[in-house]
Amino acid sequence: MKKTRAAIVGYGNIGHYVLDALQAAEDFEVAGIVRRDATNVPDELKAYRVVGSIDELNDVNVAILCTPTRKVESFAEKILAKGIHTVDSFDIHTQIAGLRSRLDALCKKYNTVAITAAGWDPGSDSIVRTLMQAAAPKGITYTNFGPGMSMGHTVAVKAVEGVKAALSMTIPLGTGIHRRMVYIELKEGYKFDEVAHNIKTDPYFASDETHVMQVECVNDLLDMGHGVHMIRKGVSGKTQNQILEFNMKINNPALTAQILVGVARASFRRQPGCYTMIEIPVVDMLFGDKEELIKHLV
Amino acid sequence: MKKTRAAIVGYGNIGHYVLDALQAAEDFEVAGIVRRDATNVPDELKAYRVVGSIDELNDVNVAILCTPTRKVESFAEKILAKGIHTVDSFDIHTQIAGLRSRLDALCKKYNTVAITAAGWDPGSDSIVRTLMQAAAPKGITYTNFGPGMSMGHTVAVKAVEGVKAALSMTIPLGTGIHRRMVYIELKEGYKFDEVAHNIKTDPYFASDETHVMQVECVNDLLDMGHGVHMIRKGVSGKTQNQILEFNMKINNPALTAQILVGVARASFRRQPGCYTMIEIPVVDMLFGDKEELIKHLV
Repeated sequence: MKKTRAAIVGYGNIGHYVLDALQAAEDFEVAGIVRRDATNVPDELKAYRVVGSIDELNDVNVAILCTPTRKVESFAEKILAKGIHTVDSFDIHTQIAGLRSRLDALCKKYNTVAITAAGWDPGSDSIVRTLMQAAAPKGITYTNFGPGMSMGHTVAVKAVEGVKAALSMTIPLGTGIHRRMVYIELKEGYKFDEVAHNIKTDPYFASDETHVMQVECVNDLLDMGHGVHMIRKGVSGKTQNQILEFNMKINNPALTAQILVGVARASFRRQPGCYTMIEIPVVDMLFGDKEELIKHLV
Repeated sequence: MKKTRAAIVGYGNIGHYVLDALQAAEDFEVAGIVRRDATNVPDELKAYRVVGSIDELNDVNVAILCTPTRKVESFAEKILAKGIHTVDSFDIHTQIAGLRSRLDALCKKYNTVAITAAGWDPGSDSIVRTLMQAAAPKGITYTNFGPGMSMGHTVAVKAVEGVKAALSMTIPLGTGIHRRMVYIELKEGYKFDEVAHNIKTDPYFASDETHVMQVECVNDLLDMGHGVHMIRKGVSGKTQNQILEFNMKINNPALTAQILVGVARASFRRQPGCYTMIEIPVVDMLFGDKEELIKHLV
C-alpha cells in the first residue's frame, strides 16, 4: 500500500498531537515538519525532516495546517497553488463561509482539495448539529462548551500586545451562553487595565462575559481537557419533543489532531474544491475498505 | 421553486409519519400513496391520490419505501427500473452491505439513486458511530437501545405464523446487550409454545435474551417512544480516555420518517448509485441554501 505523505505545518500543541495521530495511522507517513525555526528540533522530531518551507520537502500529498488560525489562509493559498491538498482547523465561526469560498476558487484553479474548519467545533460538532437539525428540523440546538481551555481563544489572547503567557478557559452557563475566564502573565512595561481592555474588545471575546486575571505562572494552570454538551429539542414532521443530545469529555488538541488526520484522508476522496466537514461523508474519514466499514458501522 | 414529488409506498406507521414530514417540508409535494388496498383511504389521505401501483402516479421523483423491511428490495428493484429514486429504512444490519451492492448495480444501470438503511439505527446512529470512530479510532462503541418498541422486531414477530398482534420491546442491559420483551396475541388454533419457539429462533431474536408473553390486548401496551444511548471510550492519536456519548429520546416512526425525507432530498445531490447514510454529506439532508446552512451550522 502506498502511504499518504503528510506535512505538518506549524508545530505547537496541535502539530505535536498531529504527529501522534500520523504515527498511529497505518496509511500515512510523515513527509516532514515545517516550522518558523527549523533549527528547533525536539527529540520526537529527530527522525523527520524539519524545514522552514514546504518546498524543501519531497512528494507531499497533503499539508496539515497547525498554524494559528489567522495564518491559515496565507499558508493554504501558497500550498494549494503547488497542487498539494490542505486541511485546517480554522475556528472563527463567522469567517468560515468566506474562507471556504476563497479557498474553493483556488482549489478549482490548481486542481486540488482543501478541507477547512476541521476540528471539533467547528468540525465534528458541526456534523452533529447538522444531523440533529436533519432529525428534527424545527427546534433549537444549544452548544455548551467546557469547562475547558479554548485553544483558539488562548492563541487570540497571546496575540494581544503586552501578553507574555495566557490561558482562556470556557465556562458553560447553559443554553449556549459562556463565560470566558482569561488568565495572563503580563510583559514588563505594560499596564494590566489596557491589556485587559484589548482582550475584552477582541472579536473572539467581544460578545461574551469575559474576566481577565493576572497570574504569576500560567503554566501551572494548564489542563488541556475539554468538553461539550449539545442538546436539541425539536420537531420531526409534526411530532414535538424529540430530544437529541451529544456529550464529549476529551483532550482538546488530541481530538483536533485526530480529526485533521481523518479529513486529510477524506480529501483524497473529493473532487477539487474546498469543503467543510458537513459536506464530506463521515465514512471517508476512516482508514479501511469501505464495504467492510459499512458492514461494521451502518 | 419546483417541488420534489415524493410517493409514499406502504402506509403503515412509518408511512403515516412520512406524510407528516412531507407536509411539513417546503420543498416536497406528495405525488400519492401506494398501498395494497387502494380503496382504504383514511381521512388524512382524502386530498391525495391513493393507488395500488406507482405506475398510476404522475411525475414521481422519489419513492419513499415504507413497506416491511423484507419487502424493500423487491419494491426498490421495480421502482429503480423506472428511473425513480428510492429511499428506505431497511434494518437488518447483517444484510445491508449486500442489499446496497445489489441496488447499486441497478441504480447505475437505470441512472438513478437509492439511499438504503436510512432511519435512526441503521441511519443517523450509523453516522454518529462512524464519527465517534473517526474521532477516536481505537476503542469500543456501545449502542444501547430503549427502553422502547422496536418497529423492525415487531414486524418480524407479526410475520410469524399464529401471531395475531405483537409488540417487541427492547430493554438495554448495558454494553450493547439487550433483552427482547415480546408481547403477542395468539390466533385461534395455534399453540403458544410453538409460536414462542418460532419467534425466539427467528434471525431477529436468535442472538438476544428473548421473553415471549401472551396478552389479551397488545394495543393497550403500545407506546412509540424510544431511545438510544451510544458511548465510545477510545484513543485519539496516542491519547487515551476520549469519551464521546450520544443520547436520544424520540418518537420512533416520526424520527425514521423525518430521516427518510432528509435522505430523499439528499438523493438528488448524488451521482447514480446506492448509498448508506455514512456515505452522504449530512448537509445534503437539509432544505435551504448550502452557503447559508454552512454559516449557521459549521
